[in-house]
Amino acid sequence: MIEGHGDDLHKYPHIQVNFSSNVCHILDHTPLIEHLYASMSKIRSYAEPIPYSLHELLAANKQIHSEEILVTNGAVESIYLIAQAFQHKYTYILQPTFAEYADACRVNNIIPRSIFSLDDLPRDAEVFWLCNPNNPTGEVQDAERLYRLIQERKQTLFIIDQSYEYFTLKETLTTDHCVKFPNVILIHSMTKRFAIPGLRLGYITANKNLIKQLLYFKTPWSVNALAIEAGKYLITHQEKFVYDLSHYLSERERVCKELADTRLIDIWESDTHYFLGRLRIGKAYALKEYLATEYGLLIRDASNFEGLDAGAFRIAVQESSDNTLLVNAIKKWITIG
Amino acid sequence: MIEGHGDDLHKYPHIQVNFSSNVCHILDHTPLIEHLYASMSKIRSYAEPIPYSLHELLAANKQIHSEEILVTNGAVESIYLIAQAFQHKYTYILQPTFAEYADACRVNNIIPRSIFSLDDLPRDAEVFWLCNPNNPTGEVQDAERLYRLIQERKQTLFIIDQSYEYFTLKETLTTDHCVKFPNVILIHSMTKRFAIPGLRLGYITANKNLIKQLLYFKTPWSVNALAIEAGKYLITHQEKFVYDLSHYLSERERVCKELADTRLIDIWESDTHYFLGRLRIGKAYALKEYLATEYGLLIRDASNFEGLDAGAFRIAVQESSDNTLLVNAIKKWITIG
Repeated sequence: MIEGHGDDLHKYPHIQVNFSSNVCHILDHTPLIEHLYASMSKIRSYAEPIPYSLHELLAANKQIHSEEILVTNGAVESIYLIAQAFQHKYTYILQPTFAEYADACRVNNIIPRSIFSLDDLPRDAEVFWLCNPNNPTGEVQDAERLYRLIQERKQTLFIIDQSYEYFTLKETLTTDHCVKFPNVILIHSMTKRFAIPGLRLGYITANKNLIKQLLYFKTPWSVNALAIEAGKYLITHQEKFVYDLSHYLSERERVCKELADTRLIDIWESDTHYFLGRLRIGKAYALKEYLATEYGLLIRDASNFEGLDAGAFRIAVQESSDNTLLVNAIKKWITIG
Repeated sequence: MIEGHGDDLHKYPHIQVNFSSNVCHILDHTPLIEHLYASMSKIRSYAEPIPYSLHELLAANKQIHSEEILVTNGAVESIYLIAQAFQHKYTYILQPTFAEYADACRVNNIIPRSIFSLDDLPRDAEVFWLCNPNNPTGEVQDAERLYRLIQERKQTLFIIDQSYEYFTLKETLTTDHCVKFPNVILIHSMTKRFAIPGLRLGYITANKNLIKQLLYFKTPWSVNALAIEAGKYLITHQEKFVYDLSHYLSERERVCKELADTRLIDIWESDTHYFLGRLRIGKAYALKEYLATEYGLLIRDASNFEGLDAGAFRIAVQESSDNTLLVNAIKKWITIG
């Protein structure tokens, strides 16, 4: 899907605060930017066709082998690569979720089937896509239950996108444990963890055999030299890029409560810093335009997620004062709407 | 193909001069680097999912419509995208040439057939890949003949990679003319033109219908924010990034003559700044290792191009004094070898 995602900031030049992508915008990137400036001569040469040097660093960090990792041009390249490698399979997706899983399936001639609860995962599923924490709902599946399913359903390949794993206090699947299973691929996002969506940096972890199958389809040089350099710097200087997750989570709770209290918005329960809301009256696109035009605040119209309707919107909370501004603006729109 | 390309500089930390990729290394990138530094906050937001703003600038520059252009993560993404969009076709490749055409075909379940002369292009060809100027030989096909073929063979889709179009004085196909044909796709490389292989920036030009077919398979955000920013800057400041092509071409001629005069190396005729040589005695990998270890000079072992053998190597000429150093070092190896 080219159009229709969040963070369409490039279309709204006068935005003050961006709640539309699930990115924590508070991180101070100054040390990273200075490091990239100092590394700028790297643009003059080809980077590694596959960033092995970054694989080594990530593997050490995750306590896995470097053959169990594959860095990609954002999590999106991971998704398309996986869909391409596992064509001609009975594929299920837990919806509503990130649209790229279904799109990646379709361009690879897979017609994915949607399920709306983990209970409904059929026995004949050969491939199962799960976003956990889920985008857009923020829901995290019970980890024990997932591990049990993975062990019970050996004929099913579980593709679990953990792009938001650093934005929940609930247990997600651990990389070093999952590489031992023959039927799990985890997708990770440095984009989200370090709030660098402009650089494009994601990675896959899985057992060696699965990584080998993916490598067959891999194009060389898909991750550019500055993204590789950023990845290496970030993974070795994580302490410079920390954020207060519990503060974010309590802000999310506060915002959700205030909006729910209006009794004009339904709120989905979330385990992370973003959440899904649904207007009882009115359309999300109109709310979005109002907030952008009148207040310079950008939210995500979530009506194009499968299974959702025109009232759905998604918000990733930001600084407290900005969140307050947003809540008040939404309340105002509801009243005048 | 992940390994085996030129510019494997990351494996040779002590290289002084890099002749191994077809990139002119003399350009001064200072203004670009300063511009990127000033634009660094772009890493904090998602870029356009497809860089429409860069499409507009390139289209104006090439005097075509922006719907006739598609910017990709290097020419390599163009190649894989095209192969994916035109699966299940009788596909031919003029060899020896860049390995990625055949690789992109293979991962898309196409078994490409090789031809070694344009005369041998069969009437039943549905897709034909041509690199022009060709990598690794530097040969440029007669433009009139190509235009004639394109018009005669309406059932054949011509995919012509013009990544090196700015490095020859011979006529190549023009973008504004080619978008009028229903059966031509041109691939272009900002990487090569502006010597920025670390940034990854290529683009496709073709008529609207062909671009639309490619867009169906396009993944969002494949070109990162800094690469887009670089592209926009370079296209509007081309005058800051000029090189003396005739000097390069005469250097290539001089180097070729000196090596041919040894009577121990066969030289392929080239129309550009790089050329293909073949050792009559000895192996290219041994010559490459010798030059890298003893002189810090990196050349391309070209033995893995289809149709070539272990004696083949490729050199992209650089500054005069460096070229002289290289010629003398090769002569020394031939004598002691």
